[in-house]
Amino acid sequence: MVAKDVLAGGVRIVLVEPSHPGNIGAVARAMKTMGLSDLVLVNPELFPDPRARWRAMGGADILERARVLSDLMSAVEDCSLVIGTSARHLSIPWPVLEPHHAAQEVLSEATRAGGRTAIVFGREASGLRTEELNLCQWHLRIPASPQYGSLNIAMAVQVVCYELFVAADTASRSDPDGEPEWDRPPASIKELEALYSHLEETLTELGFHDPDNPRQVMARLRRLASRIRPDTTEVAILRGILSAVQGMIPGPGE
Amino acid sequence: MVAKDVLAGGVRIVLVEPSHPGNIGAVARAMKTMGLSDLVLVNPELFPDPRARWRAMGGADILERARVLSDLMSAVEDCSLVIGTSARHLSIPWPVLEPHHAAQEVLSEATRAGGRTAIVFGREASGLRTEELNLCQWHLRIPASPQYGSLNIAMAVQVVCYELFVAADTASRSDPDGEPEWDRPPASIKELEALYSHLEETLTELGFHDPDNPRQVMARLRRLASRIRPDTTEVAILRGILSAVQGMIPGPGE
Repeated sequence: MVAKDVLAGGVRIVLVEPSHPGNIGAVARAMKTMGLSDLVLVNPELFPDPRARWRAMGGADILERARVLSDLMSAVEDCSLVIGTSARHLSIPWPVLEPHHAAQEVLSEATRAGGRTAIVFGREASGLRTEELNLCQWHLRIPASPQYGSLNIAMAVQVVCYELFVAADTASRSDPDGEPEWDRPPASIKELEALYSHLEETLTELGFHDPDNPRQVMARLRRLASRIRPDTTEVAILRGILSAVQGMIPGPGE
Repeated sequence: MVAKDVLAGGVRIVLVEPSHPGNIGAVARAMKTMGLSDLVLVNPELFPDPRARWRAMGGADILERARVLSDLMSAVEDCSLVIGTSARHLSIPWPVLEPHHAAQEVLSEATRAGGRTAIVFGREASGLRTEELNLCQWHLRIPASPQYGSLNIAMAVQVVCYELFVAADTASRSDPDGEPEWDRPPASIKELEALYSHLEETLTELGFHDPDNPRQVMARLRRLASRIRPDTTEVAILRGILSAVQGMIPGPGE
C-alpha cells in the first residue's frame, strides 16, 4: 500500500462521548487537511448538529460519513492496533508514545496485511477512563507545558494527524520524482570566489577597503556571503551591481 | 538562555486581521499549552470579545496581555527573525521551511544575543498578502493534503507551537545551558528595512534599478538578503558601502 493511502484507509479516529458538536466538526476538518477520512463517534452528546457542520468546513464529507456507535469496543474491534490518548499517569505504567513515534508505528502497522489502527480520544473534560485506556495497546501523550497541558480535543487530533501526514509523506518520498524547490541552480564555488574578488576590487577602488589594512571587513563580508548560498542569477545581479559601481568611479588617470 | 524559557520570552505569535474572536481565544489556548505567551493582534475585527475569552480556557492570561496594533511592521520591528505562514506559491520562490525545521531555526535564533522571532499568521480567508510575505525572511508551510490543505488558524498555531515545544524540550535535554554562538546581535527588521531602502535608493541613483520598471530585481535582492540574517555590524558595513557608492555618483546638477 502506498504510504499516503494508509491515512485514508488504514487509520481511524475515534471520539468517545464528545460533548461539544463544534469540536466534532473541527475534528473532521483537521482530519481532512491531513488526508484521513474514517471518523467514529461513540455516544456523542449532540450529533448531527449545525455547529458541527459549520466548523467542519472542507471536512463536511467526513462528518457525513462518520459512524455513530454505542460502545468503544465496537468502534475498534476490526483494528489491529489501538492507541489511546491520555494526559494522565495511570497507577500501572503503560507503554507511552509521543506523536512522532506513534506515527511511525501506525505506518508500519498499515504495511502489515489488513493492519488497521484506531486512535482514540476521550471526553473534553475528563479524557478516557481507566478501563477504556486498558483496551489500548499503547497510550499516546502530546508533549505540553507542565503549567497548562490541556489541548482542545480537535487541536490534539490536528497534532496527531499532522505527524501521521508528515510520516507518510516522508515514507512516500523514497521514490524521488520530486519537483525542483528553487528556480535557479546554485552558484558554484568558482562563481562565488569570482564574486568575492570582484567585491574586494570594487571596495578597494571605492576607497572603502584597504588591502594592506583590512580591518576584518573582507572576512566579515565573506562570512556573510557564505551564508547566502546564492544561485547563479543572484550572483549575476550582484556582479552587475559591482560593475555599475565601478563604471561610476573615476579612473586614476582621469 | 535555557531552551524552554525561549518560548515564553523569545517567540511572538502575530495574527494579522483575524476576523473571528473565537479563533483568537483558541490561539491563546494553543500557545498556553506549549509554553508561549507573547501574542500580538494586528487590526482584529472584534477584540476583546466574550467568545475569545470562552475559547481561551487556561490561556486567558495570554489573551489579557495580548497587544493590539494597527500595522504589521510595528508588530515585528523589534524582532530579528520574522517567519510568515503561507499556503501559496509566490511568483518568486522564497525560502520555505516546514514546522519541524522552522522550530530548529527559531531556537537557534534565540541563542543569539537579543534574538527574537515573530511567527506571523494571516487572515482566516485569504492569508497574508504578498507585501506582508515579503517582510518575512522565511515562509513556513504546514504539510497538508493536496485535496484540502486549509487548516483553521488556531490549528496552524497549535501545530507550529507543538513543534517549538518539542524542539525546546529536546534541546533542553541535550544542552542544558545554551551559549550564544555569534559575536554580534542580529539586525532587527527595522534595520533591515532601512538597509533595503538604502540599497534601492543607491541602485536607482546608479541607473541599475528603475522603480517604475522593477523587473524583479528588488524582490530577488530582498529574497537574497532575507537568507543572510545579518548582524548589526554587517548591516553597518553594507550601509557604509552604499554611502561610499552614493558619494561617487555625480548629483543631477553636477
